[in-house]
Amino acid sequence: MNNYLLTIQYDGTRYNGWQRQKNTDHTIQAVIESTLCNLLQEEIVIHGAGRTDGGVHAFGQMANFKTTRILEMNQFLVQINKELPDDIKIMKVDKVDQHFHSRLSAVSKIYSYHVCCEERANVFQRKYVYQYGKKIDIIKMRKAAEYLTGMHDFRGFSSEKNLEKSCIRNIYQITIEEKKEEVVFRFHGNGFLYNMVRIITGTLLEIGTGERSIEQVEKALTTGKREFAGGMVIPDGLFLDAVFYQ
Amino acid sequence: MNNYLLTIQYDGTRYNGWQRQKNTDHTIQAVIESTLCNLLQEEIVIHGAGRTDGGVHAFGQMANFKTTRILEMNQFLVQINKELPDDIKIMKVDKVDQHFHSRLSAVSKIYSYHVCCEERANVFQRKYVYQYGKKIDIIKMRKAAEYLTGMHDFRGFSSEKNLEKSCIRNIYQITIEEKKEEVVFRFHGNGFLYNMVRIITGTLLEIGTGERSIEQVEKALTTGKREFAGGMVIPDGLFLDAVFYQ
Repeated sequence: MNNYLLTIQYDGTRYNGWQRQKNTDHTIQAVIESTLCNLLQEEIVIHGAGRTDGGVHAFGQMANFKTTRILEMNQFLVQINKELPDDIKIMKVDKVDQHFHSRLSAVSKIYSYHVCCEERANVFQRKYVYQYGKKIDIIKMRKAAEYLTGMHDFRGFSSEKNLEKSCIRNIYQITIEEKKEEVVFRFHGNGFLYNMVRIITGTLLEIGTGERSIEQVEKALTTGKREFAGGMVIPDGLFLDAVFYQ
Repeated sequence: MNNYLLTIQYDGTRYNGWQRQKNTDHTIQAVIESTLCNLLQEEIVIHGAGRTDGGVHAFGQMANFKTTRILEMNQFLVQINKELPDDIKIMKVDKVDQHFHSRLSAVSKIYSYHVCCEERANVFQRKYVYQYGKKIDIIKMRKAAEYLTGMHDFRGFSSEKNLEKSCIRNIYQITIEEKKEEVVFRFHGNGFLYNMVRIITGTLLEIGTGERSIEQVEKALTTGKREFAGGMVIPDGLFLDAVFYQ
């Protein structure tokens, strides 16, 4: 079998998230699988690196699949992009080792979260940002972000239900950048718990407005209690930016 | 009567253009008028500065309307934006002179046209650019743009049917800028004929790929014949950026 790795960009607005589900075929995985299936004339299962939720977008999702076919890569790219809806695009295809798995082989990921703090946000960005409309203190948020950086038990910042699994993750870097019309939070880590990026962003925003203190971040980390962390922000502003491999 | 001027941003994708029509209420003018009508409880007619076509967007459309009401402007902005669909936004409201008319009082306008020359364009820009996917020679296009700048009879670059009206317009400036993922054409002029920006952009693109010569631009200008100009590009990449008044 040949193992191929796809780099995928998608606008998640219309979809019920990445992962194939029994009760809907309107997920990104299902759409790509059925397109591949038609194109290659065989059953195809793709393995995504991150299971993005409904409404979450990707600049660089990665997914691998195995096939008996040998792909002529350029031609394959043109063909599959012709068949896919215009909110999903395959940016790249690479041949990878038999044992490569896009999620299990990943060493780190970057997610970004986009917030508009203007009172009247840009109409053209409306599906790709959280229109927060409040003034936030960037310096204070950056200070709180320092506490979150590094190896921690992040169960207080997650909607994870199975808490018997380890909730220890390593966040290598959090950057908070002011751009023209938005503030961009960027998280680079070795892995992220369920809803972790959205809850950390929500917490940082509450610190930025003064609704929450930095001490509560420390408490959420040390006690693991969800109540010390902030609210979860909407999926619209979240992007899976990149996945890294050895 | 009080005369108010609105600065409007809209994503034209879902609409049959700006102008109210008999057979559809799905135009931007109709949507804003009916929202104003509900809000102010009186019949309102708005006058737009530019009649953008279906699929064309605006960063800064201008429209004025008269009302017996005196608006508390900040409150009005919050209210109307709550009522409008999320692809139309009023950015600003100003009180203007009784005799002010957003189209007739305008002295110039800027339109921009956005082209993606990459083979695989950014999914998130798909509704706001023309995904051209060909390599273009910027220097050559800039040279052709020099011929188009200034006072000319632009009938060769228009779909105008009533050619008894004057087709003389003054283009003050054409800029062609290479950005990260797109090429932006920007036109500043005292007025534009029907489809003129889209036909000029189409012509410049054909010059950029080498399909058309700069001499043909001169010919289209001097003879006024549409055949010497290039094809008309799709509405998706076109934005009414700004309208200027004395």
